[in-house]
Amino acid sequence: MAVNQAETGDGRRLTRRGQETRQRIVAAAAELMFENGVAETTLEDIRSAAGVSGSQVYHYFEDKQALVRAVIDHQADVVLDAQGDQLDHLDTVPGLRAWRDFIVEHQRQLGCRGGCPIGALGAEVAETDAAARVAAARALRRWEGRIRAGLQTMHARGGLPAGTDPEQLALATLAALQGGLLMAQLERDTRPLEAALDAMLD
Amino acid sequence: MAVNQAETGDGRRLTRRGQETRQRIVAAAAELMFENGVAETTLEDIRSAAGVSGSQVYHYFEDKQALVRAVIDHQADVVLDAQGDQLDHLDTVPGLRAWRDFIVEHQRQLGCRGGCPIGALGAEVAETDAAARVAAARALRRWEGRIRAGLQTMHARGGLPAGTDPEQLALATLAALQGGLLMAQLERDTRPLEAALDAMLD
Repeated sequence: MAVNQAETGDGRRLTRRGQETRQRIVAAAAELMFENGVAETTLEDIRSAAGVSGSQVYHYFEDKQALVRAVIDHQADVVLDAQGDQLDHLDTVPGLRAWRDFIVEHQRQLGCRGGCPIGALGAEVAETDAAARVAAARALRRWEGRIRAGLQTMHARGGLPAGTDPEQLALATLAALQGGLLMAQLERDTRPLEAALDAMLD
Repeated sequence: MAVNQAETGDGRRLTRRGQETRQRIVAAAAELMFENGVAETTLEDIRSAAGVSGSQVYHYFEDKQALVRAVIDHQADVVLDAQGDQLDHLDTVPGLRAWRDFIVEHQRQLGCRGGCPIGALGAEVAETDAAARVAAARALRRWEGRIRAGLQTMHARGGLPAGTDPEQLALATLAALQGGLLMAQLERDTRPLEAALDAMLD
């Protein structure tokens, strides 16, 4: 969770209503940035989609970069919530398969549009916004932590092949997932994503 | 290679000198887009870096999108040339290891900046420029083809574990590489890239 989620741009604490408005702005920004990328999304687009005034946006966010960071934290929450049930059961082969199927089916429903809400955003801003890059890295580390926890439990029960390092495997699995999502997005086809995840799970 | 590499923006054939000027513009654009992304790179930046006039840029490229597509084709040539020796020897385990080491060392030298010159660019434009998305997918397919050729030769010699599909493994390996490059870029650390490639090669 972002440290500043309950604060305005200048650090004052938010009322419950303020928190709701802030959240509405972040959700609108997240949707637009997922659909069109960061560069193509203006504060005016976000203001309009969230149904707030420009001064309200600036009340909660110092600038567009602050909003991008909030979007990254928000997308991490959304991704981990959406996959929560699956991520809680990555300590068995059927659990890993169910997670794999969930992700592939989700991409199929999206027509493979948008890529990873964290990775695609991170890739766009990595070289021009260091704070956003760090936020995206931290978001992926949260995801990796969930994968690692499952694999470590499985490993402790002797469920992984001898010599497997669950930490390395978790990192590799998230990398395969990220690359698979990118290639699926470019091809508009889930095949690369399926191949990448299947290779890791096999 | 792009079909239009020997033509101007309106389809006329280029002289040798024209081809050189066009190439200078593409190389300058590729460098700037690799460093700062597409959105942050203006035609004026490119014109200035290439040392040409604005009318020269428009002589060769109808618009920025045409230049982005040329950059993607150019980056595919650069990547496949740079890895050429390694890609020719992916039919043995030492050859695969040498390729893996070459990629990791290259990222280390770059300080993990920029990510994949094809994948990062594709991720940025995927949802706003369909022609560029298709060009990036095609570029990755060229790369995948080289990996697949090595693995198929290895497979034909009985060098892959029983039941391995070299085509699926090539796709999965490129996905792991793409995700590893993205995570290395976000973390500024080669560790995710190493984990991803090692998991595929093991």
